[in-house]
Amino acid sequence: MDEVPGAFGTSASFALRFGQTVFSSASLLFMCFHVDFYSYTAFCFLVTVMGLVIPWSMTLLVIDAYSVFVEYIPAQRRHVLITLLGDMVWSHLTLAAACSTASVTNILLEAQPPCPTKSCSRYQLSASLAFLSWFLSAASCLFNFWLFPSLL
Amino acid sequence: MDEVPGAFGTSASFALRFGQTVFSSASLLFMCFHVDFYSYTAFCFLVTVMGLVIPWSMTLLVIDAYSVFVEYIPAQRRHVLITLLGDMVWSHLTLAAACSTASVTNILLEAQPPCPTKSCSRYQLSASLAFLSWFLSAASCLFNFWLFPSLL
Repeated sequence: MDEVPGAFGTSASFALRFGQTVFSSASLLFMCFHVDFYSYTAFCFLVTVMGLVIPWSMTLLVIDAYSVFVEYIPAQRRHVLITLLGDMVWSHLTLAAACSTASVTNILLEAQPPCPTKSCSRYQLSASLAFLSWFLSAASCLFNFWLFPSLL
Repeated sequence: MDEVPGAFGTSASFALRFGQTVFSSASLLFMCFHVDFYSYTAFCFLVTVMGLVIPWSMTLLVIDAYSVFVEYIPAQRRHVLITLLGDMVWSHLTLAAACSTASVTNILLEAQPPCPTKSCSRYQLSASLAFLSWFLSAASCLFNFWLFPSLL
């Protein structure tokens, strides 16, 4: 079996998971602090998705850290399949939440009266960070998908 | 090389492409007729994406129809790679457009004054059809991705 950089248990995967954790946490924080996010369905969706993506990314970050720094964990079919399915679901949900947040923020900026600059900047920042988190999550998903057929 | 059902040139792929073409065309039509879609960025985004997805799906529909009904076209690495990359881009853009449209429609339904029932039903229908188109497009992408490593 060839080792695929970025797939389960490699240092590139560790870097991707670290980025996902940082970006999703930052996105959640910017959306939650001092902002009435619960008035809009799209913002609640973003908060829910980010609240579920963070533990997922952190768990895999810990596993990858163990594999890289302590003892190499060889990729097993079952582990890669679970990681792959999870990543696929979360990356699509993250993209959906980021797009919804971005488009609702755009509507709020054009509305009468427009939303306060401080709140809208936070919404925009949160959506941007969610897009970054999606990008890294999709990359993890692709690398694991590439590895998977060789394990069958 | 094993033949993967749903991948380039198979009858399952033909069915998926047919569904994509139908759903994206219907989504575009429901958004465009008698509705001022150009007032909102998200709706313009949906129209643009659907306007580009339709020719892509139709081209591949014709190729698959030729392969199924006239003469089998064996999957070549270059063709599968182009199909795969295109599907990946379009499926993500379709999901993004569908989510944006759905969340903006949700905001418009709650706005004061609420948008006319007729327009909002059309927006909702258009978003639902875009979601269906995304689902089929993502399926095509996955099947081709599954096939691709065996061609290297």
